[in-house]
Amino acid sequence: MSTQATRTYTDLNPSPRLLLGPGPSMVHPRVLRAMATPPVGHLDPDFLVIMNEIQELLRMVFETTNQLTIPISGTGSAGMEAALCNFIEPGDPILICVNGYFGERMVDMAGRYGAKVHRIDAEWGDVFSASQVEEALRSSKAKIVAIVHAETSTGALQPLEEIAEVAHKHGALLLVDAVTSLGGLPVAVDRVGIDICYSGSQKCLSCPPGLAPITVSPRAEEALRARRSPVANWYLDLTMVQKYWGAERSYHHTAPINMNYALREALRLVAEEGLEARFERHRRNARMLWEGLEELGLTLHVPESRRLPTLTTVRVPDGVDEAAVRRRLLEEYNIEIAGGLGALKGKIWRIGLMGHSSRPENVLTLLGALKWIL
Amino acid sequence: MSTQATRTYTDLNPSPRLLLGPGPSMVHPRVLRAMATPPVGHLDPDFLVIMNEIQELLRMVFETTNQLTIPISGTGSAGMEAALCNFIEPGDPILICVNGYFGERMVDMAGRYGAKVHRIDAEWGDVFSASQVEEALRSSKAKIVAIVHAETSTGALQPLEEIAEVAHKHGALLLVDAVTSLGGLPVAVDRVGIDICYSGSQKCLSCPPGLAPITVSPRAEEALRARRSPVANWYLDLTMVQKYWGAERSYHHTAPINMNYALREALRLVAEEGLEARFERHRRNARMLWEGLEELGLTLHVPESRRLPTLTTVRVPDGVDEAAVRRRLLEEYNIEIAGGLGALKGKIWRIGLMGHSSRPENVLTLLGALKWIL
Repeated sequence: MSTQATRTYTDLNPSPRLLLGPGPSMVHPRVLRAMATPPVGHLDPDFLVIMNEIQELLRMVFETTNQLTIPISGTGSAGMEAALCNFIEPGDPILICVNGYFGERMVDMAGRYGAKVHRIDAEWGDVFSASQVEEALRSSKAKIVAIVHAETSTGALQPLEEIAEVAHKHGALLLVDAVTSLGGLPVAVDRVGIDICYSGSQKCLSCPPGLAPITVSPRAEEALRARRSPVANWYLDLTMVQKYWGAERSYHHTAPINMNYALREALRLVAEEGLEARFERHRRNARMLWEGLEELGLTLHVPESRRLPTLTTVRVPDGVDEAAVRRRLLEEYNIEIAGGLGALKGKIWRIGLMGHSSRPENVLTLLGALKWIL
Repeated sequence: MSTQATRTYTDLNPSPRLLLGPGPSMVHPRVLRAMATPPVGHLDPDFLVIMNEIQELLRMVFETTNQLTIPISGTGSAGMEAALCNFIEPGDPILICVNGYFGERMVDMAGRYGAKVHRIDAEWGDVFSASQVEEALRSSKAKIVAIVHAETSTGALQPLEEIAEVAHKHGALLLVDAVTSLGGLPVAVDRVGIDICYSGSQKCLSCPPGLAPITVSPRAEEALRARRSPVANWYLDLTMVQKYWGAERSYHHTAPINMNYALREALRLVAEEGLEARFERHRRNARMLWEGLEELGLTLHVPESRRLPTLTTVRVPDGVDEAAVRRRLLEEYNIEIAGGLGALKGKIWRIGLMGHSSRPENVLTLLGALKWIL
């Protein structure tokens, strides 16, 4: 085999897309610039300061005082796996609430770590009540209750306060997927009483994909310390990762330096805007989108009472080729939206207005293009 | 807790370091610019083309025709874990050759996946002979022989050809850590007969940390298909990841888009330089470093016959405070080198000349600074 490339490769030149799918979202130019800063080493005193700042900023956006608040060195699914594998030992009972694709994924992952999985199901687009969770916990005890805050596959927003109370009453830790909510609507880890919460960098934080913020309550940290067996996943083992992010600064794996530069800048933008203003912006632009879609005669999949402001699901009208519409949006207008996953494949479109993508001009562009196509 | 940040954060401004440690290495400006390109979606037709190009370029640098050749979405240690967890089922026997920190890490990881680990040990700085490996395989059969090509903790270069023959003769797959060799010296996967080989983006490929190239031979793919149990790690499960990188293009996890932009550009630079020219540059600059260090009266830890051109280990002279020297290099000259790990902690310095860091002007700067300090 030749050691020379067999052909030449052009300059990188991807199309200038308007990202209105379920992530990644648009990235602010300041974040792209920060990411392109020449890297320093992962144990450089300058990087240790940056790590501290990232932890402070993540606590601000999670609304928590949890010491163990860090970005996992992988995309959102690595955050999900870190949230599960660190707190599951073989045979541990876990209750997983499944009302979409990502609840299913938690079932798959938890099984691989030997958990005794008890699942409850709701329709894709519905949410769970605290009494459903309590009934499940009465019928079989659980160490962890796992639930998705913002189901990216359905567009449903899961209320958490009462479920947190129920979980704690029954001695369980509450584990929450906030991939499509963190930075776009209140997650409020400490106020709600979430014990383990993870997200992804590329949704409402508007950083490129590659990091997964996670926060762990003191109670969950205690459960981590009480493990009898090592964590069955080396890369995501928080007992070791926290020694790098904590006072010891001992080497575990090489942190993705430039991704952390980007995350710091993305979080700095969140801090400058302020969480409340940011949440209000997401709500305002979502309402504008919903009204526009309904004016086009389209039906929204989730009732307004439990509809996510960050990700809207729209039913595909009868007789419309959903993939063809997406293809035309992409090819003719450079706009990305997504189709359905799993049970909703072919039945809905998914439109994200997350972080830097949540802007009124983007809503107008999409509505205009949809009107033209439909 | 307030939703406003409690303080302001300055513009990102890390020190302009000369990275001459064991990684990350310096990143070419073209790679930083490519990384700062606005992202497209992970299923965008434009991104699918980029994925294909990355796979072609990775095959070029691994010198392989292996279909399953992709970047794992994590740093080098995630590559190591992917290489192990996909080919280990509980009870599988594995022979691990340990002559440094990263061999030890493989033992830790393999144990977590339930492997029956048989380890053989050599001094840190030594390498293994094929007859040592064969003796171990005669005393107990193994499904996998795992070995480190370029031990980042010791600076030793492990010859692989004869060990590959021995492993195959005994029906084992050869698994090789090429973290500190890929792109800096010949790895030649197909010629040598390596079945599973992984690396990191941030060493001789001079891309920021965050991706771990891996390649899997048809024989190892067959072993993957023959598994009786699911891979015990969801994020790194190649049976699913390969469906995203292969013809199906089915969603698994959101790829780190901008990291892949960076890797493509870093690999394009490798292709433009040519592998042979790149290897020769690494050898030439290493020899310049070695001569200069010996002129300063320093002793190199590894004999020249098995010394890595990409990472040089130097013994700390008696009476010299090794950490103080590193601190002065960093604070006074903005130069990063590293100390020893594990058994060599406090006893050696580690100097990397990898990828874009391997330049004669960098060698001169370091030698000048060392002369001034010592």
